[in-house]
Amino acid sequence: MNLVDLCQRHILMDEFDFIEKLKHHFNFEILGDDCAVLPFGETDDLLITTDILVEDIDFRFSWSGPNLVGHKALAVSLSDLAAMAGEPVWAFFSVAVPELLWNEQFMTSFYEGINTLAEEFSVSIAGGDMSGSKDKFLVDCIVAGRCPRGTAVLRSGARPGDLIFVSGTLGGAQAGLRFLENGVRQEGAVDGPVRRLIKKQLQPRPEVTFSKHLGTGGLATSLIDISDGLSSDLLRLCRASKTGAVIEASGIPLDPDLDAVPPEMLRTGETVLDLALHGGEDFRLLFTVSPEDRRSVEAIGGIEIGRMVNDEETYEIVKSGDVEKLEARGFDHFRE
Amino acid sequence: MNLVDLCQRHILMDEFDFIEKLKHHFNFEILGDDCAVLPFGETDDLLITTDILVEDIDFRFSWSGPNLVGHKALAVSLSDLAAMAGEPVWAFFSVAVPELLWNEQFMTSFYEGINTLAEEFSVSIAGGDMSGSKDKFLVDCIVAGRCPRGTAVLRSGARPGDLIFVSGTLGGAQAGLRFLENGVRQEGAVDGPVRRLIKKQLQPRPEVTFSKHLGTGGLATSLIDISDGLSSDLLRLCRASKTGAVIEASGIPLDPDLDAVPPEMLRTGETVLDLALHGGEDFRLLFTVSPEDRRSVEAIGGIEIGRMVNDEETYEIVKSGDVEKLEARGFDHFRE
Repeated sequence: MNLVDLCQRHILMDEFDFIEKLKHHFNFEILGDDCAVLPFGETDDLLITTDILVEDIDFRFSWSGPNLVGHKALAVSLSDLAAMAGEPVWAFFSVAVPELLWNEQFMTSFYEGINTLAEEFSVSIAGGDMSGSKDKFLVDCIVAGRCPRGTAVLRSGARPGDLIFVSGTLGGAQAGLRFLENGVRQEGAVDGPVRRLIKKQLQPRPEVTFSKHLGTGGLATSLIDISDGLSSDLLRLCRASKTGAVIEASGIPLDPDLDAVPPEMLRTGETVLDLALHGGEDFRLLFTVSPEDRRSVEAIGGIEIGRMVNDEETYEIVKSGDVEKLEARGFDHFRE
Repeated sequence: MNLVDLCQRHILMDEFDFIEKLKHHFNFEILGDDCAVLPFGETDDLLITTDILVEDIDFRFSWSGPNLVGHKALAVSLSDLAAMAGEPVWAFFSVAVPELLWNEQFMTSFYEGINTLAEEFSVSIAGGDMSGSKDKFLVDCIVAGRCPRGTAVLRSGARPGDLIFVSGTLGGAQAGLRFLENGVRQEGAVDGPVRRLIKKQLQPRPEVTFSKHLGTGGLATSLIDISDGLSSDLLRLCRASKTGAVIEASGIPLDPDLDAVPPEMLRTGETVLDLALHGGEDFRLLFTVSPEDRRSVEAIGGIEIGRMVNDEETYEIVKSGDVEKLEARGFDHFRE
C-alpha cells in the first residue's frame, strides 16, 4: 500500500488523526497515485515508486522460493509504473536478511528471480542496500522510470460517461491464494489450471507492455492497477475522479481457470465472480476511456466492464439485469 | 552498506561466490559509489540512493525515540547524496511497522523527525510505502537528487599527490555510542560534552551544505562519506582510485568533546585517536584535492589530513614522526 492510499483510508482516519498530520508532511502535489511524478529535465517526468514486502505478511517461504519473492517484489513496482503509463528504467532493492538465509543459494536465487523479470522489460538493476535482520526477510523494491512531461495518467481524470476497462482476466491470483491456504503447493500441483492459478498468485506479470500501448495511444483518461481488488481499486478511482461507477457482472473477464476452484474453497455465499471482483494481486490495469476510443482500446486487448456516472454516490454492479450496490471488499492491509 | 561496498568486501567473496554473481546482475556502470548516477534529460544526472535501517541492528528504541530514528534515516541518505556532490531533492520512506508501534504518537514523532531535517535542506517527501511487521520496526529511506551531467564526484578520481581532506571533526559519534553502550541516555545526560557526543551518534548532521560548496568549486577529485570509519572509508577510496595513502595523526581533527570520554570506555590499548580513525557514523566527507586547490578548500572549512601516493600497497599513518601501517578497522555490517 502506498501512502496516498493510506491517507485515503477512512478506517485509519477514524482511529486517529495521524493521517491528517501526514498530509501536512508530504508534498501531495508530487505524490501522484501509484508513483511520485517528479519534473526532471526539459521534456520528461521522473516516476518513482517503492513497495515493501515482508516475510509472513506479504509472502511466505513455505509457499514460494526466494526467486519468486524476488520476481514478485519487482513485479509489484513495475505494475505501479504501468499504472501511470510510465516506462520503467531502473530498479533498486533494499533487503534485510536474517542470518539463517544469508547463504549463496538463497541470495543467488532471490536475485535471479529479480533479474529474469528485469531483463524481460529492459530494466537496469541500479543499486540498493543490504542489512541484517533479527527475524524476517524483507525487501523494498524501488523502481524509477519516465514518461513524457505531463503524460502520467492519474486516477483523477475519469469523467462521467467514460467507459471502464480492464487489461485482462481477473480472480486468478485470489484463487491461487485459496489453494495455497488449503495446503496445495506449486511444486505439488500437476500442470494445469491449479498450477496456473497458484503461479498467478506467486509470480504475477505486470502489464508493462499493455500500459505502453495505452500510453502511446493517449487512450486512458484515468488509470490504476488492481492490487487490492477491482471493487476497492475502482472505488479509489471514483473517489479521485469524483464520479460514480456502474459495472456489468457479465462483462467481468473471469480467469478461465477459476472453473478449477472447488466449492469448498469458497466462503459462504461466495461465487467465483467474487474472486474476480474482490480478489487482489492480479495486477491488471483498470482504466477509463472516452466512448469514441472504445474500438482502439479493444484492439489492444482491453475488456469493457462498465461506465463512470455523474453521481458520486452511485457505485453499482448489474447482475442479470438487477442492480446491486457494489461493496469495496478488496484487501486492506491494516484491516485483515 | 550499499551493494557496491558489499561487492568489494573480501570477507564475503571468501565465503562464497554470490558476490561475483551479483556483479553480473547489476549494472555496474551506473551503480556509482554512494548513489546510482543515472543520465536523465539533457543537462543533469539523476542520483538515487537507498539506506535500510533495522531496529536492534542499526538503531535501538531504548536509545532514541522515533523522531531521532526518522532523522537518522534521512540523514544517512542525504549524506550519500553529499558524498557525490549531488543536490538532494526528494525523499521516500518505506516502513515496516509492528502492531505495537502503530499508534499516532509513535508515527507522528517518526515523521516529524524526518520532516524537520527535510525542511532544513528543502527536500520534498514525495512518497513511500508502509507495511506491517511481525517483529521489528524498519525504515528504508530513498533519496533522489541531481547534479549537472557528469559532475558527480566518484571515489575513483584521486591521483597520487592529491591532498586528503575531511569536512569536520571525527570520533564524536563513536564516543556517543560508547556512552550509550554504557547505559548513559541522552535524556539523562546533563547539557555538555556527553550529551553532545550522544547527539552526534543519534542525530548526525549530513554535510549537504559543505558538499554544495565543494561541488560548486569543482574542488574534489574523489569523494566519499565516512559512514564506517575513516580507516575503512579511506581504504575504499584508495582501492577505487588505485592509489595508496599516508595520513598524519596530528592532522586528524578530533571532536573536542572526546576529552569527556573516560579511560574505562576505551578498549585495551585504544586511544581517543582510534575513535576518530575507526569510529563511523560521523557522516563527515572524506575527499581528495589537487595541491593547488588547498587554500580554496581550507576557505570552506576543509581539514587536511594527508596525501595520496602512487604505491597501492602503501596505507600508512604518521604518528610523531613514526610511520605505522594503517589498518581498516571501521564497522563491517557482516563481520560484527
